[in-house]
Amino acid sequence: MQLNQNIMNLKPSASLVFMKKAKEMKAAGLDIVDLAGGEPDFDTPAPIIEEAYRQMKAGFTHYTVGQALPELMEKLSVKLKEENDILCRPDEIMVTPGGKNGIYLAVRAILNPGDEALYLDPAWVSYVPIIQTAAGVPVPVKLSYENHYRVTYEALKEKVTEKTKMLIINYPNNPTGKILSAEELDDIEKFMLENQKVILLSDEVYERIVFDGKKSLSPASRSAIRDRVVTVNGFSKSAAMTGWRLGYVAASREILVSTYKLFQHSLSCVSGFVQKAAIVALDCQKEMDEMVRCYEERRNAFIGKLNAVDGIEAELPPGAFYAWIKCSKNNMNSQEMCEYLLNEAKVVGVPGSSYGEGGEGCLRYSFANSMDALMEAADRIKAAMDKL
Amino acid sequence: MQLNQNIMNLKPSASLVFMKKAKEMKAAGLDIVDLAGGEPDFDTPAPIIEEAYRQMKAGFTHYTVGQALPELMEKLSVKLKEENDILCRPDEIMVTPGGKNGIYLAVRAILNPGDEALYLDPAWVSYVPIIQTAAGVPVPVKLSYENHYRVTYEALKEKVTEKTKMLIINYPNNPTGKILSAEELDDIEKFMLENQKVILLSDEVYERIVFDGKKSLSPASRSAIRDRVVTVNGFSKSAAMTGWRLGYVAASREILVSTYKLFQHSLSCVSGFVQKAAIVALDCQKEMDEMVRCYEERRNAFIGKLNAVDGIEAELPPGAFYAWIKCSKNNMNSQEMCEYLLNEAKVVGVPGSSYGEGGEGCLRYSFANSMDALMEAADRIKAAMDKL
Repeated sequence: MQLNQNIMNLKPSASLVFMKKAKEMKAAGLDIVDLAGGEPDFDTPAPIIEEAYRQMKAGFTHYTVGQALPELMEKLSVKLKEENDILCRPDEIMVTPGGKNGIYLAVRAILNPGDEALYLDPAWVSYVPIIQTAAGVPVPVKLSYENHYRVTYEALKEKVTEKTKMLIINYPNNPTGKILSAEELDDIEKFMLENQKVILLSDEVYERIVFDGKKSLSPASRSAIRDRVVTVNGFSKSAAMTGWRLGYVAASREILVSTYKLFQHSLSCVSGFVQKAAIVALDCQKEMDEMVRCYEERRNAFIGKLNAVDGIEAELPPGAFYAWIKCSKNNMNSQEMCEYLLNEAKVVGVPGSSYGEGGEGCLRYSFANSMDALMEAADRIKAAMDKL
Repeated sequence: MQLNQNIMNLKPSASLVFMKKAKEMKAAGLDIVDLAGGEPDFDTPAPIIEEAYRQMKAGFTHYTVGQALPELMEKLSVKLKEENDILCRPDEIMVTPGGKNGIYLAVRAILNPGDEALYLDPAWVSYVPIIQTAAGVPVPVKLSYENHYRVTYEALKEKVTEKTKMLIINYPNNPTGKILSAEELDDIEKFMLENQKVILLSDEVYERIVFDGKKSLSPASRSAIRDRVVTVNGFSKSAAMTGWRLGYVAASREILVSTYKLFQHSLSCVSGFVQKAAIVALDCQKEMDEMVRCYEERRNAFIGKLNAVDGIEAELPPGAFYAWIKCSKNNMNSQEMCEYLLNEAKVVGVPGSSYGEGGEGCLRYSFANSMDALMEAADRIKAAMDKL
């Protein structure tokens, strides 16, 4: 059959492939430690669940109308201002079933076929296919381990053409754990001001997961470029709500109106009781802080142990919950190394090359797992590496 | 900004526009009867809610993997066989956040830019924009009130070209309430066999809402065309779960693999606890039957009353929950008539022209509302019509 060419040619998501592999190995009874996934190991805090149940029982199980429940739009508007320095009216916000869907809708609503979209490499596995579903052309801006994955004006300028329509960035970053510094944001702002046609999509789903008292900056906080910045965030990572599918998009009306049109015709609405639960989630500061404290403790212990392994070099990431480690021996590439450690150590990770050429030489292991599992994984990885 | 042309040019969904208008009028304190919406007035049955809560509390709040939970795929496979005569393996099924999203994903995964998609006019408001988001060309096959909206081989053949790639049908039908007869399905099958390149999308979301002991047929039950039929169904209408956002797609592996790829990169998964609740919903036969019994009672009373009004002609629809009435006086078109009845009778409906040229001259009023509200609406409509 002659199905849609762009979609037929998409590769399946590399991280989903590994999550599936891990599930299969577990199902086959193998004693594996699964550090491949990209989600909190915590369950959703109880107040959020209770609110969803209360709303369901109260009959809040029907269609909802509009970009989001008005109360949720209001509350997100306040959150964005207070926590991210983003001035954004309630009607410049819409909810989506997950942050990924917000990115998909915005990219689809912005790109015309043949438009180029810059993204920073290494990158989350879905940017390239999402750009491709929109018949856009993904253009990697390669960042390097040696330069601490610092994004620069020069690197962006080198890749811009007449056809460049978008720049997609992601801080705190999956997979590297980097956060956006003021200097980097200066460079991005300079680039955006020189290229007035470019729209910046800032994926901030890991925004609340930052360590050592640091903070990742939001590009939409810069008023000079604000109208051309689409901010995507969600509840999955911050409030351990991956399975609830709830994200949101904040953008100028012009961009939001088109994005919402596509939402209307492809989704209608997001569950009302899920939105009500999200309103409660925004107040679960204590629970969220406690999760971040745990992640930080695990990060320190896990990365500390890995750093002592011969052949592994690991920095403490300031954000997200991934150990992004340089790992090589015997000229093995990241795919080979990841498979070796899967078979030999029974620890499931993701090879850096899954995130683009810029990820070659590294592996990603999630530390959103119990301290025991992480310690066990680090021991096993050490034993396997020492065999090489 | 030069945003995506196809999406910028989309019109907002006409039925959502009217639902919003109704909400606004109610908020303004007007005593209106809202029969514009397309959803059950019943709340979701309690066992479904309890199961969702049970699963949330058990920690089933994380990402799920694959096309659907295996247990749900199994159960849907059995349901499709037993109730719809569709032979379909579990791995030929995937879930989506709502039936609309299933249609969107399948159309996007099938059409290449410039491909033509036939649809029956009058039609549900989202087919045309969904085809347009895929850069496809919507081609209406106009059916007529006089011919009871019967679909014929000749009508389809007249519109087919080299570029025809899809045919979209919807039975039980929104807005007309018609179901698919064996004779019509014979005609569709003949058309499909003569046009081997065409893929048929059968939107069956109202499948369980049928009256007088009748049954709407499923095209995928015909083995000769089965591999080229995409069946879309969901839980919104049958189990009063509109706000849960859960639909499903059944299709041959070739079509499903591409559709699922787009799902993976735009959505990742559907809430696990919602899927678990859906498994329970499939067993809520008693509750669903009771809803249908209510709809039938209301249909008979509401249409009976409307038929007695001068200027209105209404048939008993065999399926769905809409009174699709021929209504005209003083040469008013359906838009004018609908607005007149909104202002004069304070009854909110949808003008037939919202559903395409084939809907001109008719109005759609939902009878998924209380008997009292329906009787009140009919009285008010009568009074308003008598004034003309």
